[in-house]
Amino acid sequence: MPDPRFFRALGPFELAHLAVVGEADIAVTTMKPQRMFRDVAPLDRAGPEDVSFFDNKRYLNDFSNSSAGACFIRKEALPSAPDGMALLVSPNPYLSYARAAQAFHPARPLAPGISPTATVDETAVLGQECQVDSGAVIGAGVEMGARCYIGANAVVSSNVRLGDDCVIEACASLSHCLVGARVMIHMGARIGQDGFGFATGPAGHVKVPQLGRVVIEDDVEIGANTTIDRGAGPDTVIGAGTQIDNLVQIAHNVQLGKGCVVVAQVGIAGSTKVGDYVMIGGQAALTGHLVVGNKARIAGQSGVMRDVEKGDTVGGTPARKMQDWLRQTAWLDRMTRKGKGDGHG
Amino acid sequence: MPDPRFFRALGPFELAHLAVVGEADIAVTTMKPQRMFRDVAPLDRAGPEDVSFFDNKRYLNDFSNSSAGACFIRKEALPSAPDGMALLVSPNPYLSYARAAQAFHPARPLAPGISPTATVDETAVLGQECQVDSGAVIGAGVEMGARCYIGANAVVSSNVRLGDDCVIEACASLSHCLVGARVMIHMGARIGQDGFGFATGPAGHVKVPQLGRVVIEDDVEIGANTTIDRGAGPDTVIGAGTQIDNLVQIAHNVQLGKGCVVVAQVGIAGSTKVGDYVMIGGQAALTGHLVVGNKARIAGQSGVMRDVEKGDTVGGTPARKMQDWLRQTAWLDRMTRKGKGDGHG
Amino acid sequence: MPDPRFFRALGPFELAHLAVVGEADIAVTTMKPQRMFRDVAPLDRAGPEDVSFFDNKRYLNDFSNSSAGACFIRKEALPSAPDGMALLVSPNPYLSYARAAQAFHPARPLAPGISPTATVDETAVLGQECQVDSGAVIGAGVEMGARCYIGANAVVSSNVRLGDDCVIEACASLSHCLVGARVMIHMGARIGQDGFGFATGPAGHVKVPQLGRVVIEDDVEIGANTTIDRGAGPDTVIGAGTQIDNLVQIAHNVQLGKGCVVVAQVGIAGSTKVGDYVMIGGQAALTGHLVVGNKARIAGQSGVMRDVEKGDTVGGTPARKMQDWLRQTAWLDRMTRKGKGDGHG
Repeated sequence: MPDPRFFRALGPFELAHLAVVGEADIAVTTMKPQRMFRDVAPLDRAGPEDVSFFDNKRYLNDFSNSSAGACFIRKEALPSAPDGMALLVSPNPYLSYARAAQAFHPARPLAPGISPTATVDETAVLGQECQVDSGAVIGAGVEMGARCYIGANAVVSSNVRLGDDCVIEACASLSHCLVGARVMIHMGARIGQDGFGFATGPAGHVKVPQLGRVVIEDDVEIGANTTIDRGAGPDTVIGAGTQIDNLVQIAHNVQLGKGCVVVAQVGIAGSTKVGDYVMIGGQAALTGHLVVGNKARIAGQSGVMRDVEKGDTVGGTPARKMQDWLRQTAWLDRMTRKGKGDGHG
Repeated sequence: MPDPRFFRALGPFELAHLAVVGEADIAVTTMKPQRMFRDVAPLDRAGPEDVSFFDNKRYLNDFSNSSAGACFIRKEALPSAPDGMALLVSPNPYLSYARAAQAFHPARPLAPGISPTATVDETAVLGQECQVDSGAVIGAGVEMGARCYIGANAVVSSNVRLGDDCVIEACASLSHCLVGARVMIHMGARIGQDGFGFATGPAGHVKVPQLGRVVIEDDVEIGANTTIDRGAGPDTVIGAGTQIDNLVQIAHNVQLGKGCVVVAQVGIAGSTKVGDYVMIGGQAALTGHLVVGNKARIAGQSGVMRDVEKGDTVGGTPARKMQDWLRQTAWLDRMTRKGKGDGHG
Repeated sequence: MPDPRFFRALGPFELAHLAVVGEADIAVTTMKPQRMFRDVAPLDRAGPEDVSFFDNKRYLNDFSNSSAGACFIRKEALPSAPDGMALLVSPNPYLSYARAAQAFHPARPLAPGISPTATVDETAVLGQECQVDSGAVIGAGVEMGARCYIGANAVVSSNVRLGDDCVIEACASLSHCLVGARVMIHMGARIGQDGFGFATGPAGHVKVPQLGRVVIEDDVEIGANTTIDRGAGPDTVIGAGTQIDNLVQIAHNVQLGKGCVVVAQVGIAGSTKVGDYVMIGGQAALTGHLVVGNKARIAGQSGVMRDVEKGDTVGGTPARKMQDWLRQTAWLDRMTRKGKGDGHG
């Protein structure tokens, strides 16, 4: 069970309720739908009163040997299920599990109010039931919606706008930005600083004023210590529902579409436009002024130096179509393993 | 126009004034030099009262179709200019634009004073007209010059020195460092922590005291969440005018020369010496104890494992001369595209 | 000598004392064991009253020309020593030097007490002689051992546990974690935030509650601005004595063994299990769900996509055995340098 010092726990819930929450069908089972479950747990740690999920073949063995009382699975996994487990069939077992886990362990409830050690400018306007923790600083002219959470020692600079239900975690800082509703910004993220913009003359580098903003649409999540520069003239835009991991760098004028997934330590250089539902693997780099089409997939560590077509999957540095990169890698292995061109082979 | 909630705006300015500010010549035009301009804007968004710039052929189409009233351009671009646009000819249009943009949108003016929620040690000495924002902490023995800005919740630890006109943004933290004049340190940057120094013995890793400092010369800019370790014995040095982007790692004893440009997520390992005016592309890595000559250029994502000669351009991992890396990449493409050595081809 | 504004200095110490501290033998010398030494210094800066070390052949020239009064060396270096230098023979000169440096320059002594501008929840329990600096925030239910240091504007969130003698530097933040003794967490590190966990359905990405913790064992050091996500269900675990550099990303459920060394900007994806005494070079990436055996070595910038056997050394992307990667690199160089397969050669 999750450590009660850190997590709330609700429940227990009936099997039938979990099926409803997880939008799943109960497969034929001898278990009564009123059977109670107390928690979620991964396959290898779940017991008879836990519900789990199986969605990655790598864990087939864990599934077949699991003691979980119930499990969200795909239909195809039915034959591999251990005896006695209640099976909740879902087209997306992980999504079903997510919803069940949210039911058992909802986010912490807000404790509305402003800590006496927070500094809130008298011209800032806070919506109903916001919580501002110790040491947080809210600048002049800030406007935030209802039920926002501002963590300890976080900084929301002058005139920033936040929609309803935003979560700004401890030590994060925001400036020059307009933020939608239900946006979550993790600890130490930096939003809205100057982009890396300068012109180089005979007397050195001269700063180009960065006159745009960061526009973050609804339902975005931004990871810990990630940095998003404000636009140089146009805005930097993060589309609705996009998920950004930790330590990611987003440069000025970048436009990320809706529902993108950007894994940790990715870097996206200035003015690149990324479409909707694009997946970018960890540590990948995109150079500036590129266009990446909708639903493209970019492998981890790849170095993208040209536009990527809609739906393409690319990898390697310089990035090329995934099958080409894999072929090159395999060919190189073959050539050198056999010693074909290798005097030392 | 830049969002007035976030940016100051001066002007309008006459065409003739912009030419002076941008050190440009007004090309033959029917426009009067007294014609007024209200703002800067990129080519695709500029209107008749805006001044823009054209300096990257990729945007030739935007230039030819721009409605900008005036534009800083290179002489060679004159034939491509649309009718009616006032042309300001400069050897460095982007630099000219930077100066015009600074004229329209100067940095925020300081509001000198110490926030009542800042903590300034009684032994710290602040120059005239410094601004210390809410929650900032200034340690014992700190000395800072005139007109410094210390952002909200930033920390300047004991005995740090700052020259005149420094900007330390929100949530940045400095220790064990000597900082010159006009240095800008962005949100969340970490300057002066222990380098990664330990000796490994039979009982585990033993910390080697890191006894140097970070010395930051004048006119340096350091990006958000960048980390610069103090020296192990010698100092870590960042040369005058060097520009460092976000999320960069500079290890102990590194010496960066003057006027370097270090793009986001670069890592430079311990004791490497980088000359003056070196360009290092995003996510590049330099191993330790290297020497990189003046004006060398290091491509993004490359892995530099040997010294780089003065003026050389290198790329790839392990990094080699750029033309060699490009040739290898092209050769590999050719070999595998044609199926030459590829049984599956 | 280290800048006295930033470092304490003890001593002088006798040669014989340094030999004891450094667990070294004094080689035949005309120098008296009572000869006093005032400091440590690197070879190229040491004078007659300093003790240095020589442990990397790259610096042989510095050794032979050094003015250091004494030097920790390996036995094999005896013939290269300059005349008059006292030689302290050790199987691990750098370790010996580390101990001597610690003797001359011990860590700052604590100044126990809670700053009046810190916020410590009334339900938090602090051990004896803790120091809590200005602006730090200690949440409800926190328990910390004796002699902990909490830096300015650091945040220790509700119910976090810290063992004795922990150092949490300025602006770091911790939540959902259990921390052992003698753990050092540098400025801006983020411990315990949500992992990057969501399930993707037709209506977008749905957050999967992250219900584990971060467990940090004794004697761990975590670098500036590094991020360690809490587990999704199991815990994220950092084994005793492991050293993690700056800007590293550790994802949910990762298990790092004991005594590992993780260099700056490494990324380790979710659920990967790393054994004991593993070395991971800067900017390397490990994909998720891998197993890396004890004492494996992973080269900088490599991209590890498969399990790594105990004791293996791997490099490249995708990572392979080091000798294979080096052979491929060399072969590619040879093929293209000679123009063998290169129509343009």
